Amino acid sequence: AKLNQPAAAPPVVHYYMNNLTTSRTPIENRETVLVLTPMARFYQEYWDNLLKVNYPHDLIALGYIIPKTKEGNLAYAALQVQVLKTQSGPKAKRFASVTILRQDTETPLQSQSEQERHKLENQKPRRSAMAKARNSLLFTTMGPTTSWVLWIDADVIEFPPTLIQDLALYDVPIIAPNCFQRFYNADTKANDIREYDFNNWIDSPTARDMAAKMAKDDILVEGYGEMPTYRSLMTKMYDPSADPGTKVKLDGVGGATLLVKAEVHRDGAMFPAFPFYHLIETEGFAKMASRLNWESYGLPNYLVFHYNE
Amino acid sequence: AKLNQPAAAPPVVHYYMNNLTTSRTPIENRETVLVLTPMARFYQEYWDNLLKVNYPHDLIALGYIIPKTKEGNLAYAALQVQVLKTQSGPKAKRFASVTILRQDTETPLQSQSEQERHKLENQKPRRSAMAKARNSLLFTTMGPTTSWVLWIDADVIEFPPTLIQDLALYDVPIIAPNCFQRFYNADTKANDIREYDFNNWIDSPTARDMAAKMAKDDILVEGYGEMPTYRSLMTKMYDPSADPGTKVKLDGVGGATLLVKAEVHRDGAMFPAFPFYHLIETEGFAKMASRLNWESYGLPNYLVFHYNE
Ligand SMILES: Nc1nc2c(ncn2[C@@H]2O[C@H](COP(=O)(O)OP(=O)(O)O)[C@@H](O)[C@H]2O)c(=O)[nH]1
Ligand SMILES: Nc1nc2c(ncn2[C@@H]2O[C@H](COP(=O)(O)OP(=O)(O)O)[C@@H](O)[C@H]2O)c(=O)[nH]1
Ligand SMILES: [Mn+2]
Ligand SMILES: [Mn+2]
Repeated sequence: AKLNQPAAAPPVVHYYMNNLTTSRTPIENRETVLVLTPMARFYQEYWDNLLKVNYPHDLIALGYIIPKTKEGNLAYAALQVQVLKTQSGPKAKRFASVTILRQDTETPLQSQSEQERHKLENQKPRRSAMAKARNSLLFTTMGPTTSWVLWIDADVIEFPPTLIQDLALYDVPIIAPNCFQRFYNADTKANDIREYDFNNWIDSPTARDMAAKMAKDDILVEGYGEMPTYRSLMTKMYDPSADPGTKVKLDGVGGATLLVKAEVHRDGAMFPAFPFYHLIETEGFAKMASRLNWESYGLPNYLVFHYNE
Repeated sequence: AKLNQPAAAPPVVHYYMNNLTTSRTPIENRETVLVLTPMARFYQEYWDNLLKVNYPHDLIALGYIIPKTKEGNLAYAALQVQVLKTQSGPKAKRFASVTILRQDTETPLQSQSEQERHKLENQKPRRSAMAKARNSLLFTTMGPTTSWVLWIDADVIEFPPTLIQDLALYDVPIIAPNCFQRFYNADTKANDIREYDFNNWIDSPTARDMAAKMAKDDILVEGYGEMPTYRSLMTKMYDPSADPGTKVKLDGVGGATLLVKAEVHRDGAMFPAFPFYHLIETEGFAKMASRLNWESYGLPNYLVFHYNE
């Protein structure tokens, strides 16, 4: 730069929101994807699969929010090692940007063990805290050029490199693959798979009745025997012999893996940390999106896999 | 820069959310303020007063959303002239950044005339569209360093240079000054002031009763004779002879001028575009914030002035 030139004026940027497309051909249209992951623990397989994603990395921004716990400190350190390696490695693998937020709020649970996390009485405080973490991450990282938001949990350790293109191809506001888990089946003495994420569902008259009779601030949660809702769970719809591309309309969604058109969030759809129609967090998000006239879908036969603790 | 150095890695940024303060001494703590204005029309007095704001401009980011209408085009052009002038003028006056979004959604009303805007039957579509515009602006511009969000309408044409410090001093999550209007009083043959923004209110048993009896998607709006709510309006509390610093707790707020701690929005508090407890937009925002345990306050004797059409 020449000396004695006036300093550059601070940035003034103009965005025409209607030029921001979300299409079934997002790569051709150079659509930006914001990948958001709340992370209490770091899993190497998550990162390895993220690196293998073959959507152009220069169109991908990554955002993390990590709790201020001992485990969170470990996750933070492990993530940093990988981020630094990737961002100083081959150019084609580098992501457009990486934002890491350290959460300022306390986590309501002492233990992140699966057993503790999934106790019925822990659901409201746990998922309310998760909702706030997701909102904090979303409000802080979404920018004027974001076309899509891909929510993917840190413990989703297996997903195809074509995940973004595959989901975008459906051209729907919100879409979730089916989240399963690998395990060793002691009965058949073979590796097997089983259902994991019960938050992708179609509503039922029973669930609606239960909600109608609940106290104002009670919530309905899914996957608990003591609270049968008779909702149609997407995990139950998995059929390896059927059309792999089948799509179903959903009323509740999980956040394990979820592609959302950014305009859905821009209209105000967020993760309610309070009971919203007796739903919270990602399930409340689907309901809020529907109040804004955005529909949710699921792919029963398109699997991603959650870590098996 | 040296030649043959490897290209800089894309940015990796770390933020400790607990280092982001919102204090009663925001200047000392170098707290960033995001000033957000939905703008259908440009008023020179708005801009002149914004320039006079004596909070350090390098800590202020500006964000605009402008509708895609003929009037919007005019506002856009007028705003650009002023922005370019300011951002290339004296350094101390320049703002940290300016983001201008052109809305992609249609505006529901043909006319922006006051009469048309304030018709009771136009309130739901109009305010629902405003809610989406505010959310779009908020979700798109809030960043990891934002401590405060100051909402100020484009037609608020008179406010003190110390506005930000004055409001921050109360150290509350959400705070609104009282929005009045100057006019020529034909009776007294003198310049006078009168109430303008009726959205700052304390709830009433009547309003709660009305809401309880309403159809699911009906909304309560304030300031309409055909729908008396008997809420306590902050405009009615104005008393020039009383303590100018008096603060009252509010249940509904307007967006004409409103200072919000960014963490309130980060928790997920946005402007509902759908009936939320029979409220929408800024009034719904106050309700949603209260569901997230954030309180709203108003300053009955601290005036800002709305343009008089
Ligand atoms: N930032 C943040 N992330 C969390 C917290 N608790 C869990 N997570 C992450 O959020 C995602 C979902 O949480 P998880 O406990 O796995 O949910 P589950 O699989 O439904 O039991 C995972 O990526 C976790 O690592 C928390 O308190 N703060
Ligand atoms: N982006 C956008 N801004 C709008 C639209 N309609 C009004 N505004 C702006 O939003 C603010 C509030 O709207 P206004 O009509 O003045 O509300 P009122 O004063 O309550 O009647 C003002 O700054 C307007 O210029 C719209 O359709 N889109
Ligand atoms: Mn998990
Ligand atoms: Mn106005």
